[in-house]
Amino acid sequence: MAALLLKKLTTKAEIDNAIKTTEDLVLVMRFGRDEEATCLQLDNILAKSNDELAKMAAIYIVDVDTVDMYKRYFDITLIPATIFFFNGEHIKVDYGTQDHTKFIGSFKTKQDFIDLVEVIYRGAMKGKVMVTSPIDQANIPKYELLYKDI
Amino acid sequence: MAALLLKKLTTKAEIDNAIKTTEDLVLVMRFGRDEEATCLQLDNILAKSNDELAKMAAIYIVDVDTVDMYKRYFDITLIPATIFFFNGEHIKVDYGTQDHTKFIGSFKTKQDFIDLVEVIYRGAMKGKVMVTSPIDQANIPKYELLYKDI
Repeated sequence: MAALLLKKLTTKAEIDNAIKTTEDLVLVMRFGRDEEATCLQLDNILAKSNDELAKMAAIYIVDVDTVDMYKRYFDITLIPATIFFFNGEHIKVDYGTQDHTKFIGSFKTKQDFIDLVEVIYRGAMKGKVMVTSPIDQANIPKYELLYKDI
Repeated sequence: MAALLLKKLTTKAEIDNAIKTTEDLVLVMRFGRDEEATCLQLDNILAKSNDELAKMAAIYIVDVDTVDMYKRYFDITLIPATIFFFNGEHIKVDYGTQDHTKFIGSFKTKQDFIDLVEVIYRGAMKGKVMVTSPIDQANIPKYELLYKDI
């Protein structure tokens, strides 16, 4: 299981610490459930990108059921949801969808994820707190704007 | 005009700096337009609370038209919008409305604002990133969930 290859944050304190101490790297946090199909697909992509992105990103997975405060804080109603930080600041991304705070679902390809992290890294290094996603619209999951019980 | 009594942040760099350097105080940022009626009402309350909250908060006003990136970043579509940070982290507040990221409109009374800042301060000092608003629901502006062009 790809999740086994990825670093985990298991408590609010660990997330706080990752946000506060990750320096000059894109902090990637995937909120989801390891065993769910879309999450498996996403984790597979994250695990495969991990080495390639080592100088640009720190990638973590978070079990959404263990961190209720951050689940509410990030308004996570659909999973998996991937959130990006840089030097303590939540970096927002215009994916062409209504939600700029997180990427919902799985990336379609490893390259899509790598391209996105590169755009965030370059933008954030220049002081940007919001960037535009480079991912082809056809590869952005289209989800209904409904609240699901997770 | 109350706005004259309040400290201003006029560029993205000044906002970045306030977020990064305000320590152990609630950073209050009011995004709006000084001359608008609701903003005048809000600024009046902020100005009157300023001294009383000196040990708990740093209050700033921001002209929403001068900081386009943060306007998009915070998804500000209705003004005035008041946003809270603590030690670099955006503190979210459950106002009983759908938007937990900012307070829309003016507070009804100075005491409402002071109570809210106190709850944020106490929560954040304990490590919370999200708190529940202590303001009586009757005093929370009810706005339509429509996008207005601002």
